[in-house]
Amino acid sequence: MAIADEQHDPKMDALYRDIEAAELFPLWLQQGVLTRTPRPKAIPYRWDGGVIRALVERAGELVAVDRGGDRRVLACVNPGLGGAPWATPTLWAAIQYLKAGESAPSHRHSPSALRFVIDGDGVSTTVDGDACSMHPGDLVLTPAWTWHEHLSTSDRPMVWFDGLDIPLVNALDAMFFEPHPTGYDGIRGHNLSERFASVGRLPGGVVPTPSSPLLVYRWGDTDAALARLVEQNPRAASFDFVNPSNGGPVLPTIGCAMHRVPSATSTIASRRSASRVFLVYRGSGRSYVDDATLEWQAGDVLAIPSWTKLHHEADEDADLFECTDAPVLRALHLYREEVLESD
Amino acid sequence: MAIADEQHDPKMDALYRDIEAAELFPLWLQQGVLTRTPRPKAIPYRWDGGVIRALVERAGELVAVDRGGDRRVLACVNPGLGGAPWATPTLWAAIQYLKAGESAPSHRHSPSALRFVIDGDGVSTTVDGDACSMHPGDLVLTPAWTWHEHLSTSDRPMVWFDGLDIPLVNALDAMFFEPHPTGYDGIRGHNLSERFASVGRLPGGVVPTPSSPLLVYRWGDTDAALARLVEQNPRAASFDFVNPSNGGPVLPTIGCAMHRVPSATSTIASRRSASRVFLVYRGSGRSYVDDATLEWQAGDVLAIPSWTKLHHEADEDADLFECTDAPVLRALHLYREEVLESD
Amino acid sequence: MAIADEQHDPKMDALYRDIEAAELFPLWLQQGVLTRTPRPKAIPYRWDGGVIRALVERAGELVAVDRGGDRRVLACVNPGLGGAPWATPTLWAAIQYLKAGESAPSHRHSPSALRFVIDGDGVSTTVDGDACSMHPGDLVLTPAWTWHEHLSTSDRPMVWFDGLDIPLVNALDAMFFEPHPTGYDGIRGHNLSERFASVGRLPGGVVPTPSSPLLVYRWGDTDAALARLVEQNPRAASFDFVNPSNGGPVLPTIGCAMHRVPSATSTIASRRSASRVFLVYRGSGRSYVDDATLEWQAGDVLAIPSWTKLHHEADEDADLFECTDAPVLRALHLYREEVLESD
Amino acid sequence: MAIADEQHDPKMDALYRDIEAAELFPLWLQQGVLTRTPRPKAIPYRWDGGVIRALVERAGELVAVDRGGDRRVLACVNPGLGGAPWATPTLWAAIQYLKAGESAPSHRHSPSALRFVIDGDGVSTTVDGDACSMHPGDLVLTPAWTWHEHLSTSDRPMVWFDGLDIPLVNALDAMFFEPHPTGYDGIRGHNLSERFASVGRLPGGVVPTPSSPLLVYRWGDTDAALARLVEQNPRAASFDFVNPSNGGPVLPTIGCAMHRVPSATSTIASRRSASRVFLVYRGSGRSYVDDATLEWQAGDVLAIPSWTKLHHEADEDADLFECTDAPVLRALHLYREEVLESD
Repeated sequence: MAIADEQHDPKMDALYRDIEAAELFPLWLQQGVLTRTPRPKAIPYRWDGGVIRALVERAGELVAVDRGGDRRVLACVNPGLGGAPWATPTLWAAIQYLKAGESAPSHRHSPSALRFVIDGDGVSTTVDGDACSMHPGDLVLTPAWTWHEHLSTSDRPMVWFDGLDIPLVNALDAMFFEPHPTGYDGIRGHNLSERFASVGRLPGGVVPTPSSPLLVYRWGDTDAALARLVEQNPRAASFDFVNPSNGGPVLPTIGCAMHRVPSATSTIASRRSASRVFLVYRGSGRSYVDDATLEWQAGDVLAIPSWTKLHHEADEDADLFECTDAPVLRALHLYREEVLESD
Repeated sequence: MAIADEQHDPKMDALYRDIEAAELFPLWLQQGVLTRTPRPKAIPYRWDGGVIRALVERAGELVAVDRGGDRRVLACVNPGLGGAPWATPTLWAAIQYLKAGESAPSHRHSPSALRFVIDGDGVSTTVDGDACSMHPGDLVLTPAWTWHEHLSTSDRPMVWFDGLDIPLVNALDAMFFEPHPTGYDGIRGHNLSERFASVGRLPGGVVPTPSSPLLVYRWGDTDAALARLVEQNPRAASFDFVNPSNGGPVLPTIGCAMHRVPSATSTIASRRSASRVFLVYRGSGRSYVDDATLEWQAGDVLAIPSWTKLHHEADEDADLFECTDAPVLRALHLYREEVLESD
Repeated sequence: MAIADEQHDPKMDALYRDIEAAELFPLWLQQGVLTRTPRPKAIPYRWDGGVIRALVERAGELVAVDRGGDRRVLACVNPGLGGAPWATPTLWAAIQYLKAGESAPSHRHSPSALRFVIDGDGVSTTVDGDACSMHPGDLVLTPAWTWHEHLSTSDRPMVWFDGLDIPLVNALDAMFFEPHPTGYDGIRGHNLSERFASVGRLPGGVVPTPSSPLLVYRWGDTDAALARLVEQNPRAASFDFVNPSNGGPVLPTIGCAMHRVPSATSTIASRRSASRVFLVYRGSGRSYVDDATLEWQAGDVLAIPSWTKLHHEADEDADLFECTDAPVLRALHLYREEVLESD
Repeated sequence: MAIADEQHDPKMDALYRDIEAAELFPLWLQQGVLTRTPRPKAIPYRWDGGVIRALVERAGELVAVDRGGDRRVLACVNPGLGGAPWATPTLWAAIQYLKAGESAPSHRHSPSALRFVIDGDGVSTTVDGDACSMHPGDLVLTPAWTWHEHLSTSDRPMVWFDGLDIPLVNALDAMFFEPHPTGYDGIRGHNLSERFASVGRLPGGVVPTPSSPLLVYRWGDTDAALARLVEQNPRAASFDFVNPSNGGPVLPTIGCAMHRVPSATSTIASRRSASRVFLVYRGSGRSYVDDATLEWQAGDVLAIPSWTKLHHEADEDADLFECTDAPVLRALHLYREEVLESD
């Protein structure tokens, strides 16, 4: 922080020395804080899905699932963030790999988490005793402070995308974590939360909860919804996954959305005061992020910083899963959005 | 109101005379207002579906659809309510009959309305330009102040159940009504609202609205949801239809629910400070309402007054559609519910 | 309800007979329900404060406070409402009279209540153990289901205005009432709720509640607020009393407001889909209600039906206390308001 | 981030090298993220009010108010936060100094701000044209994106405490800033917002807003409220400043509170997942923060990290002003609180 006067005025130098000694800082020397528009340190970035896959497979051979943190996970490190394993300032994005027959023990934490299945089968995630089966394209939630464990009964590995609000919870000094006292919490039933899985129909007596009571959003429904939206408007075939008990985001700190970009179309450019991570589930194309271009194909992970102008363009029919901190910005009345091109 | 003193004290008689002349009333003579528990004037009542059907068919021969009120409708008159055409103090329940090829012109009103299709096909209800097709078992909404018209392109008649909050809106002196200036509002598209028809998925940019943006709840989904609930608990296979944009009731003043009572089972008895109307969509059985028993079969309409102990019993697998003013009572913090028997 | 065909068509007559026998009613004969705008049965009406005062004093001599309903109260009977002791379809308005040294025992009920003190001193209303002292111009709340009793330690009587939502609760069949098991609930402290009595300051740990946690709104503060508003705009010196825990109405079903109309000014005309009762606390003038004119002076009570065009005009500086069912209409999304003259 | 295997297994070393090259990080090497309870980097810290005062006076002699950032401000630098000028990870705390007759030009920004006046007189802060006079002990708000400027017409300087959510807005990449196009926004009126300054009374037609429409909370009312609370419970004489339009915090991201600790008493120990800054407005004493003790007197500023056990003890009657990010944690459902000692 060493501050000094440009003019080398000895009185100013003395003042600065004393200010610094008092653990104070003069606003008038501050640069880069009160900026006209956001200046994210995070950069637009793409992680290569093929590289990640190869690395998690190698890790699968060399590292036991219980080696540390209870999970075999490679986290995306945004090169702009000084080495922290964050994809954006608020979002943790990672690839998790569970080998045939493995199990990852139960724990719970104040961060909220979601999984989007990339490949494999035969795994269930147990959330407070509800064993949720997982299949490619499914979105699975493990809301804040729910006990959760992953169990494979398959003969092949599963790979999924993990999205969490760890950087946010960390920045807010609100991290609580607890390993399960007995290692595994046990199964009370299978896919119980899917009693909520009817549009516009909630079991009697349900009350609104901040996190979705529906824990799994199946690919079949996702695919059908996207198909219906493409028919209506091929340039804006997007939906938000919502908490059916209150119509809000699936998790109070992370919004999830799905985008279908038909081959040879592009989406409408916009920017918003929220950061985003995309997982390319299917297809190939590119994203224009301010002046950068990120080429992508299935399996890739993209980080899109706040207030960057973004649009996507597909070469092959593409499906993009998105998670975003927009619900945080909205809750704090800090959300802004600009459409930069009319459709 | 003529009030008089029981003791024939002349001073009291004079006082009462003067009170009455001043358009006042002494609380101490008031009976039946501040009661320990609700004393509904409405009575538990069943309207016979077969009788109604025969009458609407006769009306179909004799009365043009545009005879008055723009609709061919027979409303249920609860015998306890002094002749008003209300099923309960807050709910209008009626059977509407549209003949092959008929059309009922467009209008809008401050009361909220719903339709539950009993029989027939080939009709659509247009709601602010969205032509919603109607099939047996479908729930169709025409929220407050939306333009709506009914058009038949069928060669046979359709019969449906109408539920509205007319008595409530009337009691609150909040009735606004407007016939469409040109008779018909016209069709902008078909089944457009079903872009909301995916569980936990809302098109991008949707904001919460007091009435559901999803206008049709299809029987196929209803049937599937009931089947799933029966598997979990055959004595409590009930769901609420909800507004996907906020998780609340489909209309701000009317809640809708569906109940499946498998043959030879009965539901759990309870009472609540809310009135209800049931349409028996399928099956037969009976409802116990305090000391009364209402025997019913498909097509019957039932009125259940507030704070009566209720449970149903099915002889044949039964599906009951319910509409209730419970959202009103909840919004005003006047809702109470008691389960009277554990399951 | 006897319905008959105008044309004396025998087939129609038979149909109508059968419809009536089946406890049904044809919509096409319905008049006065689906009206273009509200058609209140309640009429604009003024009750004379002097007459009421004389009558409650006579009642004070002749009728014991425990004669019935636990209270010595004369309720305003709107001549349009068929003899029911309601001032409007949703509001009970009454004058209560407690003689020197009397006490009215404790009870609680689902209706919400408010008191506005007209004259007298030395009375306290105990609300769940909090003995709230009462002085002229104070607004005192007894929210739904709170135990409350009135105790006089004065040597002179007190007269106050009572506003309740009894007609609404009655229409919704949601009346619950309970006399206190031991007659009086007892005093836990005095004016405890006034810990909430600082603008924009709530004691630590307070959570929002549907009814105001502040039970007394003192005249001194009311008078000062009105004076400040008159300075800003003498034609619109009005405020709403609000629940400091959520910024909403003081009671979920009754809104309260205060209006100061300086001598020789008039208020801006408007109409709203809500009924209102005014108590003239001070001054004299008149209210224009559609085509009616109600002349008033201090002590008078006025009923203003829904959707009537209203403005006030003062001869002497006037203070009007208002209670209204507008919060009910707003909660149900049925509220409309039109300003009919610009200021 | 250079990662290496502890066992020097060449295969692991190669894996780690490749993971790093791919901008990934293995969860199993992560330390200090998923901690049992929060591990704030910020430390409990006290800034000496006398030292700050002397420094801002020296700055007043040497630095023009328009030198940079439009304001003459010394910000508190929490020694745990790596040199950033933040008092806690979410809160900016600073002392601002405006000399006699100076003016600080108008600007607006997405961060929300508050001022608590320490000393001086004759300054007004203009907020969207409302010139709010400032006196010692007053809390003055400049909500997010409101134009604001500070104008002195005094012959002596004013010193006040600034609290902002700059670190939070910065971490969320949501910073927007705009200098006023003409330098000063101008005055539309004086203390206009104080039309909201009556407990439980809101001008007609007010709708809830995320930031308080009342911009100034006067010391006289604050002092009176504290006196009342001390009478009720001298160990818990605390209140929250609230937004009268919704009962919530004064700003969506910053909660403000006031605490009076009478001489020779101590407050109840607790900890919460929220960070706090205190300004000692009056008195002296000490705060116990986990194992640290911070001795304080009037003018000092204290930083209290998240999840530290805190209680205060006064030698002389003390008044502490607090600002906190608790509203952020609550909005995101991340707030926890534990009382560690019963009262």
